[in-house]
Order: sequence, then C-alpha cells, then structure tokens
Amino acid sequence: MSRPQILQLYREELERGLAEALRADEARDGSLLYPILRYHVGLRDEKGLEEKALGKMLRPSLLLFIAQELGGDVDRALPAAISLELVHNFSLIHDDIQDHDEIRRGRSTVWKLIGVAQAINAGDLMYSLAIKHALLSGPSAAGSIIDAATAMIEGQALDLAFEDRWVDTESYISMIDKKTGALIRCAFSTAGIISGADDDTLDVLASLGRDLGRAFQITDDLLGVWGNGDVTGKPRGSDIRRKKKSFPVALTMQRADEEGRTLLKRVYAQDEITDNDVARVVALMVRLDVRKSGEEAVEEHLKQASASLEYLPLSKEGKGMMHELIAYLARREK
Amino acid sequence: MSRPQILQLYREELERGLAEALRADEARDGSLLYPILRYHVGLRDEKGLEEKALGKMLRPSLLLFIAQELGGDVDRALPAAISLELVHNFSLIHDDIQDHDEIRRGRSTVWKLIGVAQAINAGDLMYSLAIKHALLSGPSAAGSIIDAATAMIEGQALDLAFEDRWVDTESYISMIDKKTGALIRCAFSTAGIISGADDDTLDVLASLGRDLGRAFQITDDLLGVWGNGDVTGKPRGSDIRRKKKSFPVALTMQRADEEGRTLLKRVYAQDEITDNDVARVVALMVRLDVRKSGEEAVEEHLKQASASLEYLPLSKEGKGMMHELIAYLARREK
Repeated sequence: MSRPQILQLYREELERGLAEALRADEARDGSLLYPILRYHVGLRDEKGLEEKALGKMLRPSLLLFIAQELGGDVDRALPAAISLELVHNFSLIHDDIQDHDEIRRGRSTVWKLIGVAQAINAGDLMYSLAIKHALLSGPSAAGSIIDAATAMIEGQALDLAFEDRWVDTESYISMIDKKTGALIRCAFSTAGIISGADDDTLDVLASLGRDLGRAFQITDDLLGVWGNGDVTGKPRGSDIRRKKKSFPVALTMQRADEEGRTLLKRVYAQDEITDNDVARVVALMVRLDVRKSGEEAVEEHLKQASASLEYLPLSKEGKGMMHELIAYLARREK
Repeated sequence: MSRPQILQLYREELERGLAEALRADEARDGSLLYPILRYHVGLRDEKGLEEKALGKMLRPSLLLFIAQELGGDVDRALPAAISLELVHNFSLIHDDIQDHDEIRRGRSTVWKLIGVAQAINAGDLMYSLAIKHALLSGPSAAGSIIDAATAMIEGQALDLAFEDRWVDTESYISMIDKKTGALIRCAFSTAGIISGADDDTLDVLASLGRDLGRAFQITDDLLGVWGNGDVTGKPRGSDIRRKKKSFPVALTMQRADEEGRTLLKRVYAQDEITDNDVARVVALMVRLDVRKSGEEAVEEHLKQASASLEYLPLSKEGKGMMHELIAYLARREK
C-alpha cells in the first residue's frame, strides 16, 4: 500500500529539518549523544552511514499540511513540526527502556546500544532539542506542544500503571487519548494556532485529532495481535507475549466469562508466555469477536474524523488528501 | 553555619510556587506521579505528610535576588525561578537512576520507591512542568532555561562517559561547567534577561555564574571525600567508594607517579571498594596536596566572583548579601 500524499508532501523538508536539529559540532564537548539521536530517528545507521529516516512522520506532516491548508505560514510551522517529531522520538527512547524492548523499526534500540543510563540522557536531550524548536515557532505553539508532551508523559505513566491492574476499555481509551492522542491532537491544534484559526475551528481540529489518534492507536493494538510479522517487524501475537494490556486485551477481559478471565489472568501472571498460551488467548479473542469490535471502533472514529473534515475550511484537493490519509490509517498493515 | 540571607529572602514564595507547580487535581487521570514529585522536592514525605522543602534552592533564590537588584519584575521572574528548581530536580531524579543511588537528602530516591520505569516518567514530567513555567516568564527566559537544561544534560552525558576513562582537571572543569555550571549561570543570565540588562551586564552575570558554579561543584567534590558524614548525610570518602571521577580524583591522577596511578586504577577497577581502599586513596590524595589545591581553586573562583560583583549595578546592601553568600559557599559543610 503506497504512502498517502500527505505523508510525502513535506518529507524532504522534514528529513532536512530533522538532520539539522540533530546535528552538533562533533568537536564540541558534550556532543557525544548526537550521533545516537540521529541513529534513533533513522538518519544514521550503526555503522555511521546515512539512510532515510525510518518513521512515517505522521505528526509533523499533518501539522504542516493543515497549517498550509488554513493559510498559515509553513516556514514558521516547520520548527513546530520538527519539534513534534522530536518529542515523539524522545518518548520512544524512554519507552524502549521501560519496556525492555531490544528492537525498534528492525534495529537495536538506543538503550541496547549505549546502556540504560546514557539512553535516559539521550531521551532527555532529544526532548530539550524538541522544546528549543517549539520556541522557534512562537510561544503559543511552544505552549501547545509542551502541554501535549506533558499529557503524553502522564499517559505513559498510566500505561505503565496498567501493568499491575486490569482495566476496562473506557480507562484504556482515556489512557491512549493522552499517551498517543495528545501529540496527534497537538499536530492539528498547533497548525490551527499558527494559522490564527478561530475557536470553533480549533475545536473541530481538536476533535478531528482525537478521533484520528484513537483510530491510529487501536489499529496499532490490533496489529500487535493480528499483524503480519513480515510487515510489522514484530511476530504475530507479540503484544500478548509482552503482556501488553492493549485494547484487545481490555475488551477481552471485559467480555470474557469466568473461565476466559481466569485463562487471561493465568497467562499474564506467568514470567514467560509460550506460543501455546498466545494461541489460546487469541482463540479466546476470536470467540469474543474482539478483532471485529476493534475494527468497528476504528471505523467509527474514522467516520467521525471524516465528518469533522466538513467543518474545516480546507481546499477541495486538501480534503481529498485527508480522506486518502484516513483510508490509509484504516487499512495500514504496519 | 546559618543560611545566608539570599537563601532566605524568597524561601516562602518559592516553597509556595513549588507546591503550586506540583499540585494536580488528584481525581484526574494521569495525575498519579504528582505526589512523588512533591515528595522528591521535599514537600511531602513517604507517609504523605507535608514538610518543608529540603533543598537550598540556590538557583531560584539567586535568580529572584539578582532580578530584584537589577530592577526587574520579580513577579515575572518567579515562574522562571520555579522552572530552574524543577529542572534541577528533574536532573536529580534521573541522576539517581543512573548512579543507582538509593538515598538522596537522607530519604529514599524516587526510583527506589516507584521503580526505574516510573522514575524515568517522573523526571520527564518534572522537566515538562519546568518548561511550562519557563514559558510563563516569556520566550527569552524560556529560551535561556532550555539552553541551560540542554547543556546540563550534555554535561551529565559527559560525566557518565568519564566512568570509562580517566580525565584531567581541564576536561573535568569543562564537564562541570555544563553539568552544574549551566543552571547556576542560567540563574544569573535569566535574571539579567528579565531585567532588560545590557550586553556588558549579561557578560558579567555569565562569568559571575560560571565562577560560582565551579566553586560550588568543586566544594561538593571536596565534601564527597572529606565531608563530615553527620552533616552531609553521606559517609566520608563516599565519592571514592562510588568510584566517582570527581575533581580530587582527576587531580590525583594528574599528579600521581606511576605507583599512585596504579593504586588508583586498581581500586577503581574493583567491583566493591573496601574501607581500606578508601583510606589508601585518601592517603595518596593527602600526600599530593589535593585537598589544599582544591580549596585554592575554590578560593580563586570565589575571588573572581567577588571581583565580578564590582561591575554589577547592585545596591550596597545587595552587594553585601552576595559577599555573604560567597563566604557561605566557601565554607559550607554540606
């Protein structure tokens, strides 16, 4: 499935901006973490060769696209866009430490390469550089980004706390609204702020962002159970193996009878989860129609998002590209 | 030794501001880390009781004092001051994880109480709240604080890198100029920025900050070897036991003959360091006049700092208080 236009339009500018943001005078004292930051975002591989940034750059692309569509100054929006991508990547560096994940986008994670202590610094530095860039787009944009980053961190704390308890889908959604949703919402809101949008438009942008964020995360969660390992880079059922309390798991717990709940609790209480355990949990999910309900939830949010689009003063072409993006998010395989 | 006036003048305001900054609507989703942040800065003990903040609050006190002396708006400076204290505390939370320190200011460290994963989030959240406050003092103040925080993190990365190699005092000083010095310098510079100081004054403020920062850190390092455990809360020689490459160690390595260097290398290569090892290293330091040279370095920087004071448009009373602070920093026991 080819990349939607919105994710291609600004890709070169964003890669250049990202490379610029993570460049440091290598002779300078204290520059030692910059190569690993470039490595992390995909600008440099373990051997020091440059390669194309690996992420989708969804958040910064959306920010620039919406800013342009609303008549904002795209040059002024660019640092904010870079900032969002840096905040996102800062969170990934710290997440990987917290989850003990050794592989990200098919390559070793930062902590795996430089150890936990320096990886904490690498994340902190990435966050600092993000804020520096946010300030270049003006204090209101910076305020919007720092609020979103704060919510994201609170969401991450909630997600970790969920490891010790079972949650229903409502609590789960309110967690992802923070952990994943805040930054995606922020892409829309910051674009609105930079373009001088009125309050009504800002409200529509926020709810559009909220719906896309939920659709995005629930899709991720479904891929974490049913995704094709060759495409996602993670083995099928990997979220169960990693005992993630993701959307399908929350829904399963909510719907299962006593026997099903006991199975799920028993499996999640184990230190190591076998292929057989994974298969049994997935079978339970299939019986409970969890995948179908998840897909319906995604569809519902994307429908809401499409509806929100009608209230935005986008060009006809721009609206078409947003619909293309929405279709892509609904059907993406990684 | 009683606390100098500068550290008392704004203490109540700062404690109130800090409590305000770390308050959260406890019923709100995602507020779960706020109690531990308050605990960390000393506003709340493990049992939930309020107590006075434990730190000296050197950085925010200096910022407010200098802003007031230079005719700046102290109300506008207050969020920046709170921000500096939050940045400092964010760094302590992450430092304690990196150093595996279990005790800070006589109490359990954050990671020891809530685990490494959530402690990373706690530090990230503290940093976010710091930036939010920095923005309240205006974009220039925020820019100054984020630059200092960036330098601080780079310094922390350098310090960690020093664990794997031996450094001379010059490299050591350039590391502490970032790790400790950046925030102290920032207290002076931000006060200048908020007060609309001219470039010459900003230069003097920066060099005053640099000298105080160095004096402060070298004093800390001397206390880490020769400090009275009953006062500092750490056992005598604790920095050697923790294999810190602090100023006395860098100077010892620089001055020692082959035999001394071999001793130091052997001790630092061990997993566990005995009381006997500590005693032998300290004896080597005494032979090499390391303590005296350290104290001379501190004196020299404090003399420079006193000289810088003459170029600042401070009130006579204000100048007196700065001299009192300098004398305190020269003679502090913790």
